[in-house]
Amino acid sequence: MQVDLNSDLGESWGTYELGADAEMLGIVSSANVACGFHAGDPNVMRETVIRARDGGVGIGAHPGYLDLWGFGRRRIQGDSLHDLEKMAAYQIGALMGLAALEGAKVTHVKSHGALGNVAAEDDEVALAIARAAKAVEPELIYVVMPGMATERAGEKVGLRMAREIYADRAYQANGNLVPRSQPGATIHDAEEAAANVLRMIEAGAVLTEGGGRIEGRIDTICVHGDNPAAVAMAKTLRARLESAGLSITPFHSFV
Amino acid sequence: MQVDLNSDLGESWGTYELGADAEMLGIVSSANVACGFHAGDPNVMRETVIRARDGGVGIGAHPGYLDLWGFGRRRIQGDSLHDLEKMAAYQIGALMGLAALEGAKVTHVKSHGALGNVAAEDDEVALAIARAAKAVEPELIYVVMPGMATERAGEKVGLRMAREIYADRAYQANGNLVPRSQPGATIHDAEEAAANVLRMIEAGAVLTEGGGRIEGRIDTICVHGDNPAAVAMAKTLRARLESAGLSITPFHSFV
Amino acid sequence: MQVDLNSDLGESWGTYELGADAEMLGIVSSANVACGFHAGDPNVMRETVIRARDGGVGIGAHPGYLDLWGFGRRRIQGDSLHDLEKMAAYQIGALMGLAALEGAKVTHVKSHGALGNVAAEDDEVALAIARAAKAVEPELIYVVMPGMATERAGEKVGLRMAREIYADRAYQANGNLVPRSQPGATIHDAEEAAANVLRMIEAGAVLTEGGGRIEGRIDTICVHGDNPAAVAMAKTLRARLESAGLSITPFHSFV
Amino acid sequence: MQVDLNSDLGESWGTYELGADAEMLGIVSSANVACGFHAGDPNVMRETVIRARDGGVGIGAHPGYLDLWGFGRRRIQGDSLHDLEKMAAYQIGALMGLAALEGAKVTHVKSHGALGNVAAEDDEVALAIARAAKAVEPELIYVVMPGMATERAGEKVGLRMAREIYADRAYQANGNLVPRSQPGATIHDAEEAAANVLRMIEAGAVLTEGGGRIEGRIDTICVHGDNPAAVAMAKTLRARLESAGLSITPFHSFV
Repeated sequence: MQVDLNSDLGESWGTYELGADAEMLGIVSSANVACGFHAGDPNVMRETVIRARDGGVGIGAHPGYLDLWGFGRRRIQGDSLHDLEKMAAYQIGALMGLAALEGAKVTHVKSHGALGNVAAEDDEVALAIARAAKAVEPELIYVVMPGMATERAGEKVGLRMAREIYADRAYQANGNLVPRSQPGATIHDAEEAAANVLRMIEAGAVLTEGGGRIEGRIDTICVHGDNPAAVAMAKTLRARLESAGLSITPFHSFV
Repeated sequence: MQVDLNSDLGESWGTYELGADAEMLGIVSSANVACGFHAGDPNVMRETVIRARDGGVGIGAHPGYLDLWGFGRRRIQGDSLHDLEKMAAYQIGALMGLAALEGAKVTHVKSHGALGNVAAEDDEVALAIARAAKAVEPELIYVVMPGMATERAGEKVGLRMAREIYADRAYQANGNLVPRSQPGATIHDAEEAAANVLRMIEAGAVLTEGGGRIEGRIDTICVHGDNPAAVAMAKTLRARLESAGLSITPFHSFV
Repeated sequence: MQVDLNSDLGESWGTYELGADAEMLGIVSSANVACGFHAGDPNVMRETVIRARDGGVGIGAHPGYLDLWGFGRRRIQGDSLHDLEKMAAYQIGALMGLAALEGAKVTHVKSHGALGNVAAEDDEVALAIARAAKAVEPELIYVVMPGMATERAGEKVGLRMAREIYADRAYQANGNLVPRSQPGATIHDAEEAAANVLRMIEAGAVLTEGGGRIEGRIDTICVHGDNPAAVAMAKTLRARLESAGLSITPFHSFV
Repeated sequence: MQVDLNSDLGESWGTYELGADAEMLGIVSSANVACGFHAGDPNVMRETVIRARDGGVGIGAHPGYLDLWGFGRRRIQGDSLHDLEKMAAYQIGALMGLAALEGAKVTHVKSHGALGNVAAEDDEVALAIARAAKAVEPELIYVVMPGMATERAGEKVGLRMAREIYADRAYQANGNLVPRSQPGATIHDAEEAAANVLRMIEAGAVLTEGGGRIEGRIDTICVHGDNPAAVAMAKTLRARLESAGLSITPFHSFV
């Protein structure tokens, strides 16, 4: 059985370096590449494309708000759905341009940070991004949260989808993440995170607080690489998944 | 006989409006669309794409330096050729993303401002942009200055080319523009500009200072729209060309 | 009796021009000068400082969110109060630097756009800006909305204050603006706006919906200059105020 | 006898961290603080101001080109002298705003990167920055290269000056740095650098290639902190200077 590991990569910019990209590209099977709005620049994007291609890692566009200072983590109110659709198309297209330079292919799209949080909750925003993806490249795979707006949008627009869980987070009954402010929201222990992920993969469902289930295959698990502890957790997770007989494979080959 | 008129359009950004785009799109047959680095944003790019598509005007990417403050008119030293290739690929791809949203097609590329000036003179820079265009979309037409580095680069890389003259500028023997600081560099009278352009089209050559010729068909004439006098000159030029029996047609249909 | 007219000016940036600054500087007595975060650049700021100084118009810093694309009109969530205090201090200091170049003095501060809206409602945000102003230049006058958080912050921090109304807006009972989405929120007729303003000045109170009053002298009236109708309204307002015997004077001379 | 060590600090921006600031602030006696154009943001600037103040380290503005992507290291052609004067005034003022928040004082100015290189060579550019400094705060100390344009500008404008050498660079006969492309331009060994610096301090002159001298007291030595080797060299240099009986003191206390 196959499962994918994905991570946000290519988040350096200009002189500024961020993230353990080289290491993470040896762990994950899909890379969400920042496209210049919240992080990433043409140099970084191309370098990330080359490394991912050479490592057999799937390449995805990771559009975010135009907010380099806030790293795309601040909610910005007032952009229309039209704005968001265009911002997504711009960023996806830009990455496709750089991928073309290296004979590589962009195979998925996942919205970043605050835009991702809004898209999970807001059907219209999720649809705007889905429509952009569908228009720019109909074969793009939309990374979605089971039970949430992104999944509904992907179905409505007719995109291939990769259903994602976070390795280190607990889930509310509706499929959304438990807010970080609440107890038990975040899993800090790598073994616990691995056990949690394995339980969901085996269940074929997102297991939520209070014993609920959101049915459906788990295609990909999001891991972080922005600090040494995160990298270590990602490594452990991969090892445990492989020990359990799972093959870590880019989701573009199986969804 | 066919000839194209091209102009830089889509140079508004955010709240800021610039240029008589609506009027110019009724005059020219090809639009060079700013791609966000020196001007233009996703909203403006999409609006320009829609208007150009609806008016039967050819759509081209107009990559520039990452210099919104300087509007891409300042030479920035220190970018490697690799940087420029990636910056061009990013910008072309971004416009293709927005064009895809509207079912439109990007058919040419022309470098903007200071980057355009450098590309005209520097074979390596001209090649970097040509390689980016070829990689991102092999059918793109490269707008070049006859006799200059861009033309050599287009030939070497194997791109379709549109050979361009400026309606209001005099040319040096080598094909480069006479610097604005020199007497006679700029033509301010619309009738004189039109006569000048017609002379070159009929000659099948760029006619340079001192009576020289740079042989080859003139495919497109660059006109400006950034002030009322420029718009008036563009209108007059179009009228004179049509009176002379020329059909104003996007160059993508004949080069 | 004296009253001030203030307007947002210096909102051009780089190549982009915005606003009828030359005309407005002949109408208003205080200028809120954009400081580079949402609009304005060093060239524009200096030009605005020179014109205001030469016209006897008061010069104020107009700090906004770091959001050039959104022109500071989008609420950005996630900045801490500390961030906002520092952003305000940076922008006030920058304008003071340019004013020093021209032997001019910055005499007030007024927060812009979405930051202004948030500051009106949120005591902590209003205090952050007030603290920045007090620290950078204790004599700065804080432009506040009577009854709102900015006024409370100015009192608490011990800043001189100019109490402001908008010429073209209706007020809720608590002193906040009636949202634009509601009927009667905006006054489009210049004569009606002038009558409204005169009524409040004579009453010595903001007159709110439902017949309420928020007591206190009206020091300054905000007018707009971003379109010809706005400029015309500002002109009419000034004429009516002068006809009523009011002297249009920078508030820094009387508050 | 006193000498100062200075370093470029506060070069982080947003999420991006750069430089060993904490460590360097224990080594140097003057900090050149990036002001937001090529690096630094209000948060970083304030943090750097606090740390420098608490460590008794002199605080200086470090204005650069508006070029975050290029980290201010790219020469940008086309800014007028007026532009540069205003850009410098803006950045100096902004830092003074943040310093005021913390009860600290900005005591010097040193131009950054490509702007610094241009200012060293070009009298007009050096004067533009000197004039900005003089206007914003007449007591500011201008960090200059002995024999170069910055020194002439400081004299002409009447600024206090700190005459600077680089610990790790060789000098041409005219006082400019030997270009990095030439053999012997850079000193990699810390002991050699320390010996070199001590020789110049004792000589009371910049010692240039070919045995020349540019007379005058050496007030400050520039050291780098952008990699572990640079930090180690700075530490060694400080130790050797102290062993030779020199007191490492902010130049604002002795020039």
